[in-house]
Amino acid sequence: MTIEFRVDTTLPGGSARTGTLRTPHGEFQTPVFMPVGTKATVKAMTPEELESLGAGIILSNTFHLMLRPGHEIIRDLGGLHRFMNWKRPILTDSGGFQVWSLAKLNRITEQGVRFRSPVDGAEINLSPESSIAVQEALGADIIMCFDECAPHDATHAYAKRSAEMTARWAARCRAAHARPDQALFGIVQGAVYPDLREWSARATVDIGFPGYAIGGLSVGESKPDMEAALDVMDRELPRDKPRYLMGVGTPNDFFRGIERGVDMFDCVHPTRTARNARLFTNEGALNLRNAVHAADPRPVSGSCACYACRNYSRAYLRHLFMANEILASRLATTHNLFYFLDLMRRIRESIRNGTFAELKAGVIAVYPEKRGHPTARSTE
Amino acid sequence: MTIEFRVDTTLPGGSARTGTLRTPHGEFQTPVFMPVGTKATVKAMTPEELESLGAGIILSNTFHLMLRPGHEIIRDLGGLHRFMNWKRPILTDSGGFQVWSLAKLNRITEQGVRFRSPVDGAEINLSPESSIAVQEALGADIIMCFDECAPHDATHAYAKRSAEMTARWAARCRAAHARPDQALFGIVQGAVYPDLREWSARATVDIGFPGYAIGGLSVGESKPDMEAALDVMDRELPRDKPRYLMGVGTPNDFFRGIERGVDMFDCVHPTRTARNARLFTNEGALNLRNAVHAADPRPVSGSCACYACRNYSRAYLRHLFMANEILASRLATTHNLFYFLDLMRRIRESIRNGTFAELKAGVIAVYPEKRGHPTARSTE
Repeated sequence: MTIEFRVDTTLPGGSARTGTLRTPHGEFQTPVFMPVGTKATVKAMTPEELESLGAGIILSNTFHLMLRPGHEIIRDLGGLHRFMNWKRPILTDSGGFQVWSLAKLNRITEQGVRFRSPVDGAEINLSPESSIAVQEALGADIIMCFDECAPHDATHAYAKRSAEMTARWAARCRAAHARPDQALFGIVQGAVYPDLREWSARATVDIGFPGYAIGGLSVGESKPDMEAALDVMDRELPRDKPRYLMGVGTPNDFFRGIERGVDMFDCVHPTRTARNARLFTNEGALNLRNAVHAADPRPVSGSCACYACRNYSRAYLRHLFMANEILASRLATTHNLFYFLDLMRRIRESIRNGTFAELKAGVIAVYPEKRGHPTARSTE
Repeated sequence: MTIEFRVDTTLPGGSARTGTLRTPHGEFQTPVFMPVGTKATVKAMTPEELESLGAGIILSNTFHLMLRPGHEIIRDLGGLHRFMNWKRPILTDSGGFQVWSLAKLNRITEQGVRFRSPVDGAEINLSPESSIAVQEALGADIIMCFDECAPHDATHAYAKRSAEMTARWAARCRAAHARPDQALFGIVQGAVYPDLREWSARATVDIGFPGYAIGGLSVGESKPDMEAALDVMDRELPRDKPRYLMGVGTPNDFFRGIERGVDMFDCVHPTRTARNARLFTNEGALNLRNAVHAADPRPVSGSCACYACRNYSRAYLRHLFMANEILASRLATTHNLFYFLDLMRRIRESIRNGTFAELKAGVIAVYPEKRGHPTARSTE
């Protein structure tokens, strides 16, 4: 068995839907937010804590694990699930995005990419075939094709060449993939050009995958450009397969994606901002380093049922941040992941009972849109 | 009620004993190891985790909390227990040791000490009276007299003047202390000079306290000097009161103290070494950064029942340390505190059933003594 996806409810007159995705390590409900555990750990958290927060699937990063500790070590220790003691589903990305964003001296050819390891400077080649081999060694339930993520300001000519190569690489990935207990997702590219998005979606669907990811968004493009690209995705991607919007993101972007039929999201946003003392609440965002919290006996959010809000004051959390204590990162991460996972649960509920529009209006009202949200597919 | 101490068993032919110490926040068994939570958090741990590891009492530091967030804030938020969400007993030190070891430009007079805050440079006075006032604001179950900790290489003349002033300060602390729900402990000083240790013990006992601390040891003196000082303490301190050896320490030093009638210990050793990847086990110490562990599927210790050893390989812990992941500190701290707290539990059991000597021989055999263990009364 690889995966089985079932659409459970579709919002009348729209594309938003709830679903169930079954994997060899259990099933989860969609739309889903996947916490990011780049280096085989969701920063500051244990697997049991993630489970108790309701995380149904987590993401880990091929690029980082290949370099350290090395995928062979993880394979020989029984695979990524056993290595990190996480018993539920895992999705690994392909390493493509990190090669572009993190590696120095990369050289891209039709064959693949050559780069120097940021860990030890060693020269490394990554190709569609080797990315699949690494992901097979790691053993995630869902793995991704090796793609090129064109920059948001790529010219049409560059984005076209890039999307075409990504499609050829997707075919090679599919041919190389052999593990029967993993589902390989294709990735649609095409930057901000609707014609290329359409071409890339059709080319990827023609190859045929059990799920489709939308890459190259939330990398700096405007919100209208993102929405236009998502509109094409919603029109072109098959409705009976899960759709994964990579590296997204924020509460606002969840609604943008979900109303265009997206089922899966991942982003470092909740965990990274938590470690920077920025907390999400139903009442808006809070910066815990702000002196206004120094003697405040209230929890971060009076409407939140997370462990941090049930047991600690804003004053205590601010103190932990000012003193650079590890517990600050733990409590803030717990809170932000609770908010994101609970928001996704509320969104699923609102699709089922027809209150999606009201929930969206309430959430986006407290998160006025700003520039400068984190880049998609960041790792941590 | 303040505290009640009862000796339950004394090892035949020796001074080692087990006891029960009852405080307003519950009782614990002695000999006890107190994890150090300098800044109102035992680094990397939640209170619930400390409880599940069996911690019966923790220590926190007056000096640090006075400077940040400030004792008035903690008092106004309901005291230290509520501030940090720890429901069991707390002991606070007096700030004396930190003034000597951490503050710049301190000036010592009979009145007290003047120093500059290492947090913001503000000029601060700390005296016996103000130390007690701060500790009353924090609200720990057991608080300490404000003392001067003479250096291990102090001359006899310096150590004598220092011990005499510490005794006068102890009388002022006792006079200043008003909260009826706190027990104030006296501190014996006298550096490595048996005659001064004897004088200081008698002077402190003459003032009269519900418990006695042994200060100024494990600050760089030789092991024979430490043992000689502890011999004097064992002879001079009343057997019906708890004895607390401050800032100690290592498994070897626990045995040194306990066989001389010590009941209470605290040290940053297990938590600090954990964050530096050094782990204590029944089979000896382990440095998890060592490359030999890179692919090792075994737990840190096959004989250990802690959360880290039940769920993770040495290879995974080493990976977390090499990647500077927060979970490395969490798992290693969990393991080391489990080892220290479990060792103390085994020591209590060995006193009750007469196997203390065998236990001691087995433990010290795997921890050959070295120079350079951490300074007593370090904070973190």
